[in-house]
Amino acid sequence: MLSVTLPDGTRREYSNSVTPYDVAAEIGPGLAKAAIAAEVDGAQIDLTTPLPAEGSVNLRLLTKRDPESLDILRHSCAHVMAQAVMRLHEGVQLAFGPCTSNGFYYDMLLKEPLSEEDFPAIEAEMAKIVKENLGFERMDVPRSKALSLCQELGQEFKVEHIDTGLSDEETLSFYRQGEFLDLCRGRHIPSTGHIGKAFKLTSLAGAYWKGDAARPQLQRLYATAFFDKQQLDDYLRLLEEAKRRDHRVLGKQLELFTISPLVGSGLVLWLPKGAIIRQTLEDYLKSELRQRGYDAVYTPNIGKVDLYEISGHFPYYSDSQFRPIEMEDGERYLLKPMNCPHHIMIYKSKPRSYRDLPVRLAEFGTVYRYEQSGELSGMTRVRGFTQDDAHIFCTEDQVAGEIRGCLEMTLKVLKSLGMDKYRVRLGFRDPESDKYVGNIEVWDRAEAAIQQVAEEMDLPGREPEPGEAAFYGPKIDFVVTDCIGREWQLGTVQLDYNLPSEERFGLEYIGADNQPHRPVMIHRAPLGSMERFVGVLIEHFAGAFPLWLAPEQARVLTVSEKSEEYGREIEAQLRAAGFRVTGDYRGQKLGAKIREAQLELIPYMLVVGEKDAQNDTVTLRDRIEGDLGALPVAEALAKLQQEVADKTVRQVADTGGAALVDRSKKNEY
Amino acid sequence: MLSVTLPDGTRREYSNSVTPYDVAAEIGPGLAKAAIAAEVDGAQIDLTTPLPAEGSVNLRLLTKRDPESLDILRHSCAHVMAQAVMRLHEGVQLAFGPCTSNGFYYDMLLKEPLSEEDFPAIEAEMAKIVKENLGFERMDVPRSKALSLCQELGQEFKVEHIDTGLSDEETLSFYRQGEFLDLCRGRHIPSTGHIGKAFKLTSLAGAYWKGDAARPQLQRLYATAFFDKQQLDDYLRLLEEAKRRDHRVLGKQLELFTISPLVGSGLVLWLPKGAIIRQTLEDYLKSELRQRGYDAVYTPNIGKVDLYEISGHFPYYSDSQFRPIEMEDGERYLLKPMNCPHHIMIYKSKPRSYRDLPVRLAEFGTVYRYEQSGELSGMTRVRGFTQDDAHIFCTEDQVAGEIRGCLEMTLKVLKSLGMDKYRVRLGFRDPESDKYVGNIEVWDRAEAAIQQVAEEMDLPGREPEPGEAAFYGPKIDFVVTDCIGREWQLGTVQLDYNLPSEERFGLEYIGADNQPHRPVMIHRAPLGSMERFVGVLIEHFAGAFPLWLAPEQARVLTVSEKSEEYGREIEAQLRAAGFRVTGDYRGQKLGAKIREAQLELIPYMLVVGEKDAQNDTVTLRDRIEGDLGALPVAEALAKLQQEVADKTVRQVADTGGAALVDRSKKNEY
Repeated sequence: MLSVTLPDGTRREYSNSVTPYDVAAEIGPGLAKAAIAAEVDGAQIDLTTPLPAEGSVNLRLLTKRDPESLDILRHSCAHVMAQAVMRLHEGVQLAFGPCTSNGFYYDMLLKEPLSEEDFPAIEAEMAKIVKENLGFERMDVPRSKALSLCQELGQEFKVEHIDTGLSDEETLSFYRQGEFLDLCRGRHIPSTGHIGKAFKLTSLAGAYWKGDAARPQLQRLYATAFFDKQQLDDYLRLLEEAKRRDHRVLGKQLELFTISPLVGSGLVLWLPKGAIIRQTLEDYLKSELRQRGYDAVYTPNIGKVDLYEISGHFPYYSDSQFRPIEMEDGERYLLKPMNCPHHIMIYKSKPRSYRDLPVRLAEFGTVYRYEQSGELSGMTRVRGFTQDDAHIFCTEDQVAGEIRGCLEMTLKVLKSLGMDKYRVRLGFRDPESDKYVGNIEVWDRAEAAIQQVAEEMDLPGREPEPGEAAFYGPKIDFVVTDCIGREWQLGTVQLDYNLPSEERFGLEYIGADNQPHRPVMIHRAPLGSMERFVGVLIEHFAGAFPLWLAPEQARVLTVSEKSEEYGREIEAQLRAAGFRVTGDYRGQKLGAKIREAQLELIPYMLVVGEKDAQNDTVTLRDRIEGDLGALPVAEALAKLQQEVADKTVRQVADTGGAALVDRSKKNEY
Repeated sequence: MLSVTLPDGTRREYSNSVTPYDVAAEIGPGLAKAAIAAEVDGAQIDLTTPLPAEGSVNLRLLTKRDPESLDILRHSCAHVMAQAVMRLHEGVQLAFGPCTSNGFYYDMLLKEPLSEEDFPAIEAEMAKIVKENLGFERMDVPRSKALSLCQELGQEFKVEHIDTGLSDEETLSFYRQGEFLDLCRGRHIPSTGHIGKAFKLTSLAGAYWKGDAARPQLQRLYATAFFDKQQLDDYLRLLEEAKRRDHRVLGKQLELFTISPLVGSGLVLWLPKGAIIRQTLEDYLKSELRQRGYDAVYTPNIGKVDLYEISGHFPYYSDSQFRPIEMEDGERYLLKPMNCPHHIMIYKSKPRSYRDLPVRLAEFGTVYRYEQSGELSGMTRVRGFTQDDAHIFCTEDQVAGEIRGCLEMTLKVLKSLGMDKYRVRLGFRDPESDKYVGNIEVWDRAEAAIQQVAEEMDLPGREPEPGEAAFYGPKIDFVVTDCIGREWQLGTVQLDYNLPSEERFGLEYIGADNQPHRPVMIHRAPLGSMERFVGVLIEHFAGAFPLWLAPEQARVLTVSEKSEEYGREIEAQLRAAGFRVTGDYRGQKLGAKIREAQLELIPYMLVVGEKDAQNDTVTLRDRIEGDLGALPVAEALAKLQQEVADKTVRQVADTGGAALVDRSKKNEY
């Protein structure tokens, strides 16, 4: 006898063997048609996998409305894509075909490499397979049988994977649809017909079998699929928009940054125009830090390996670190992967009293991590980056106030950049796990404080996520939605009970009771890193920065050569007022000069002709709104100055709809 | 027949064998008594060394008026010191005993280590030896004889040195005075009586034989000597003054910086108060750079080894570099020892036209060099430092104007810090040598331009120094005299024909003729490095920074607890006006509070009592001038604001007289 409990609490009992599909069919033909997989006691299974013969289970039937379903659809679509390629080409060797944040891919080796011109034929064949509505059948077989099956299929990568990657598994699963059979863990939709029409091949790239550059290069065929044609269209439009905003393309075109193979991959050289944006942001943050009682410090980019052995960052994180510098005299140094140990050395440079706390040490500290070369991308995934970092050392009583201060500063900065769509993620302890350091009661109080502050500040998305804390303390991450709807994890505030502990740096302060106490440490970075943040900003603004950040804020354009002298006067006046301004005095047509300035995304043009020289006026031209008419020079200047002082963000498009997900690595210290 | 020409052109002829002493005696008994050594055709010899039997020589007799003589006196005094120690102690093993910038030392191994308490006895014994007026006799002997002599003397370090350090020499020289015999190249004064009374033992330190820490530790006995008692006294007073100003002591006491053994020797951690000074200086320089048409850039702290192979910095300078980081994937990175290759990559990031030049790229770039641990000292000799660096890429025609711009900025900055005593050193090509890269005519034009600019600007000490150029181009160094008369080499402007060359980076721009041309590159750093410069500034100001740089600019002091509220108001007013201000509201006596603020070198105190609260006044107290009386708050504020705006330097002591020499390494790129 099997007792099945559904999410609404209703219970059904079965004496015969049933599948989730059978249960769905019993409930109604609509659900049977809509169901694509199931979840039994929290684990996904296929719709056609038999439920246990007896006992009791919780059953959830998954339809396209459930967020988990999209990956199941996409992975099934990956099988269909591979099937289509194999129908069209001979001797195709398949590697892996997983889902990505926004779709899926399949790595494969063809005798004749594919090109994007092959996409329509593959898509047409996929449509045929969808129409054939082939069922996905699962087969569980012993490993010896799995091996011989793959050998029969001539799939050498799969054979190798069974031998090396799956050597611990006794039973392996395959899925078949029609003539196509593939080694696969699953899960899958019931049949190819569920795929519908909302799929599309998006691009081709090179990839190595298990990332090993010594092996032959495979082709990675990227594609995506949705349950709904509208969603696909939204996504493709967003993809186009994202391409147009790609900070790697704009960064080159607007001369913001460059990466040189001689300097190294993932190491950003900030060109003069990009450096203006960074310096302006840093100056802004520095003035906020000063007002909020932070102390600036400077620390070196290296430290002895011993320092990181105490902190625990070495050798445990050595996978993502540059290797140590080994000197002949036996000294070993590490490029710092984070600033905290250095700031701790500053905290420890003298005895501290409770009267000194909170100590807030801030640094634009450049750190280095050796990310895999395949993961590097422009400014957003790099090997060297400058954190807008600070560490707060405070008493337990001060934690709530300090967290509030960090959150307020982060919000102020994000809002001043037109990033007013955000949510927070509260990473809390998993109460079931014992992997955390520090006292449980202290954790509980800190988590309660975080939740209270988040509520008082009415921060969106403030639902605690148990198990998402770092092992050293609870945290709050800011996830910002840019103006085309993509999410980026940026700022972070993290508590740390580990580094101050006796086993690590043994931090202390003398309390009002004249006894030594342990301070709490808070890591916080409102932007995260200057590289990543400016990369995101470039895409957010599509390169058209607000006036206060724009590398070139204004350009003086002369109507004819007769006005050059007056034009230069205006230019000098603007420069003296602190503006980044140029002049275009060439003997070209005004229209051409305007077009050029528009293309260079310069916020304001000041057009001057002979009349202007007589009247002491300029014709102000806004890049977005166009001609604003003639006005006295002083008035134009005042308008621009006000806009800089207000940090006005005037242009933030909102395409809404679809969302591109950026799944960054967890941001831990 | 020997013909001897004297510096005044007179010629004397000798048929018998003569020594320089004989020549001096012939000229007059005064000279014979005053002469201490001689220079024959530019090479120093002892006064008693016979001149050649025939031919013709130029002879210069050295007396205490000649600058070379001081080292000869001091080295002889080192022998006398060793002799005195050996008279007082048994079994003394001597190592080396050279001159230093300001005196001399002798490394020795004693059975019972010396302490400073032994100094008077040693000095007394030295005075006895001086009184004995023992002659210095030179003996030239074959190496086998030298070896057996040292063995007889039981001097094991000397034996080892003959075997290993002097293995190429066939004939070795010894010097004897009285019972004391020492392996020594010379030169020496005629007899110990020339030493007089102006000598003094100054300190003791540990040292290793040939710097090898695996060998037993020796004692390094430091001392100094002068020809004149007054000079010695001046020097000792200066030494006291320098000790009082030691930036390592003040840096700790005023909490400006710290060095942590866990981070590493020579790696400076800037504490909050030191960071304020650095940031204020950097902000000032940045505003100057903006006005002078420089573009800020940011580049990483590492680069691939390949980059430095092209630049030629690797492996040629590897002695003073951190070793490469060797990654598992075969990539090799170097901590950048200088910023130029990175800036060159920025220059090369796009094609350049003559219209774009000059390109001026500025960066506060942190670089790393592995100086020997024995050479490290506080902030002035470090392993990681931030240069106030810039590189100018210009046409040959622009060189003179750019050099002038660099010199003007350097002068402005130095003057604004009260460093108005300086001289320049023009390092030019040695016309006899062929070690230089680049076209000789281009060099000549550049040197002429430098000299002309130096003359137009009337820069002191602008005499060209042939042979002092770097191999890659001529240069101008600024040598600044601090307020106790010590010289520090700080800023530099250097031309570079090497890095732009075809063999290196092959830099180009398209000229007005539409043809590719090679730009000239200029390296320049007005301060040199932030670490060294702030270290020098601490000593220059003895920690009492001018108002605009002072970490804590003002402190509000209450006369009694009744005025706390008003005091806090004043404090808030000052903070809102941008001042770095604190308040001392404790219930202590005003006198005690004032003393504390004076000791912390805070430029201004604002004393407030009950009357002040009624009248809206404060009693302003100047750290230097004392009580300035009561004045309206607004007036006090305006006075302080003016002083910040003017960057007034009010306190620069000038002890004049003696000079401590800082012989820094040559500053090359």
